[in-house]
Amino acid sequence: MPNAKAYSAASATSPLASSTIVRRDLTPDDIQIEILYCGICHSDLHQARNEWKDVFATVYPCVPGHEIVGRVAKVGSAVTKFKVGDLAAVGCMVDSDGTCPDCKEGLEQFCPNFTLTYNSPDKHLGGVTYGGYSESIVVREKFALKVPANLDLAGVAPLLCAGITTYSPMRHWGVGPGKKVGIVGLGGLGHMGVKFAHALGAHTVVFTTSPGKKEDALRLGADEVVISKNPEEMQRHLFSFDFILDAVSAEHDVNAYLQLLKRDGHMVLVGAPEKPLQVAAFNLLFGRKSLSGSPIGGLKETQEMLDFCGEKGITSDIELIPIQKVNEAYERLLKSDVKYRFVIDMASLKG
Amino acid sequence: MPNAKAYSAASATSPLASSTIVRRDLTPDDIQIEILYCGICHSDLHQARNEWKDVFATVYPCVPGHEIVGRVAKVGSAVTKFKVGDLAAVGCMVDSDGTCPDCKEGLEQFCPNFTLTYNSPDKHLGGVTYGGYSESIVVREKFALKVPANLDLAGVAPLLCAGITTYSPMRHWGVGPGKKVGIVGLGGLGHMGVKFAHALGAHTVVFTTSPGKKEDALRLGADEVVISKNPEEMQRHLFSFDFILDAVSAEHDVNAYLQLLKRDGHMVLVGAPEKPLQVAAFNLLFGRKSLSGSPIGGLKETQEMLDFCGEKGITSDIELIPIQKVNEAYERLLKSDVKYRFVIDMASLKG
Repeated sequence: MPNAKAYSAASATSPLASSTIVRRDLTPDDIQIEILYCGICHSDLHQARNEWKDVFATVYPCVPGHEIVGRVAKVGSAVTKFKVGDLAAVGCMVDSDGTCPDCKEGLEQFCPNFTLTYNSPDKHLGGVTYGGYSESIVVREKFALKVPANLDLAGVAPLLCAGITTYSPMRHWGVGPGKKVGIVGLGGLGHMGVKFAHALGAHTVVFTTSPGKKEDALRLGADEVVISKNPEEMQRHLFSFDFILDAVSAEHDVNAYLQLLKRDGHMVLVGAPEKPLQVAAFNLLFGRKSLSGSPIGGLKETQEMLDFCGEKGITSDIELIPIQKVNEAYERLLKSDVKYRFVIDMASLKG
Repeated sequence: MPNAKAYSAASATSPLASSTIVRRDLTPDDIQIEILYCGICHSDLHQARNEWKDVFATVYPCVPGHEIVGRVAKVGSAVTKFKVGDLAAVGCMVDSDGTCPDCKEGLEQFCPNFTLTYNSPDKHLGGVTYGGYSESIVVREKFALKVPANLDLAGVAPLLCAGITTYSPMRHWGVGPGKKVGIVGLGGLGHMGVKFAHALGAHTVVFTTSPGKKEDALRLGADEVVISKNPEEMQRHLFSFDFILDAVSAEHDVNAYLQLLKRDGHMVLVGAPEKPLQVAAFNLLFGRKSLSGSPIGGLKETQEMLDFCGEKGITSDIELIPIQKVNEAYERLLKSDVKYRFVIDMASLKG
């Protein structure tokens, strides 16, 4: 079986370091992708450091990475969707059972037996799956997406998690023309949320604690920017939002935003703060409002999102780094010191 | 203007006591109802004791009561819906602006200018509105509902708040045949929830902490009863509910129930615990679940609910008391010592 260079964490407290992993031999419906770029998601850091041990304990060595784009290097005998040389992308999942009601609806993200791109039991090799901080990956063609040719490839990588995670709830809850949409948290997810809300035709409002982010929010597509620490500004938007996307994974007050929803409005979490959120019941009762969560998206919707990005010319704003800087990037991520997503240039792994 | 006997609280710490209030002279679209029965809602107690002072401060004297049924005693010159001698009912609202988008959709419960049945500014007389703990009330005919003739009238009274509060979210979120529906909290609201979920054709599951309530839950229409303190029993229902109605107004763990929802399931609060609920974000993310709230219902839906009750023979299970026992009833309410709603026999006020 082919070896592949990768970066992995040996323990919760080890920095990521160069290593060699094994990828499986191709089955008939597999493709092998030469990875060109891989985005760095906050989940990578949580998983590498075993910070979700109660829910998803990490098995070491851990190779993170689920925002993968590259070029098809080999195809299995039954592959029809890709040929060698095609662009291809992989997101957070590399398999699912295909038979459950969720899979049958094209909502593989809810399959009780899905296989995540890293740290999931590997049905082929045993152990756990290894992610995209690597020179290559072998994946069922069904779980690989087509990449529009007109987009900057490094900027496409984050679409596979940050992109679909924000696009999916907007589509599910009907974001579009005539809707007033708020985005809370202008980070990797939030900045994609702004681009999508704008591109979908909604009146897009960015909430931020820092006046310094105002200009950037407007550049990304916001129609308005509200400084969330300013009670008068917040007050002006009471009972006016159809939909608010909450992309903050740190502790924060959701009630301040629930109050801004209009009747039957939806606030949707795409980040997962460690501590429980404090929700005042009256904020849901007055106006029949909902607080929901939404995780990534299914294959069909992920392809739809990539095609939409191709059509609208949307990519993530990124900072490209060599893989040797991944540990430094993690430290900067903790300080939100990136606009808005680190992407690893995988050419650096070959050096 | 006509005087009316009533029971009122003179302060947050005074017991309710006999008093006399003024009702307005009839305007052309008013009716005067001789009140025969009035249910006791937990809100009555909160309001009488000014326990919601941050949201709805109480103005004294306070005459509670918004589960009102009686007989039309007088009609204004333009009244068309009622004639003297008809049964009529009044719920939580006695007016709204009629011009806002919510009113135009028949969702007066969301009108920013609605007038609650008690403790709302009284546009006619100044001061605040007085509720149903009284021998009569004058109300716009639009805000009075028709009562099916075949139902026990005392058992109809609680339908005007406990009934519509549980019926409305079930209709809004599509409770019906093929759906698995949970009811948390078997009190005044919860017991109506069981009756409605059953009558709407859903598979109805009651959650209770006390095994002693099992038989009663089955009698009310439950298909299953789950002892919520038993982790194995709860575990068996993971990811299986379409809809859960949470009728608990004391502090409690909503996460235990969010885990039982299936994908895209809805948990809806109809009670308002004093302290914020603790919501774990992962419980919403995994399965795209929603936590929502729902307050009472609009006039159209309230009439629909009453008609549905007439058709299905549904009333509240009640304990009828004379008004002289109202303070004692409040104390018993605090101990949940009632099956399942106190209703005041207003004949006792005439004595």
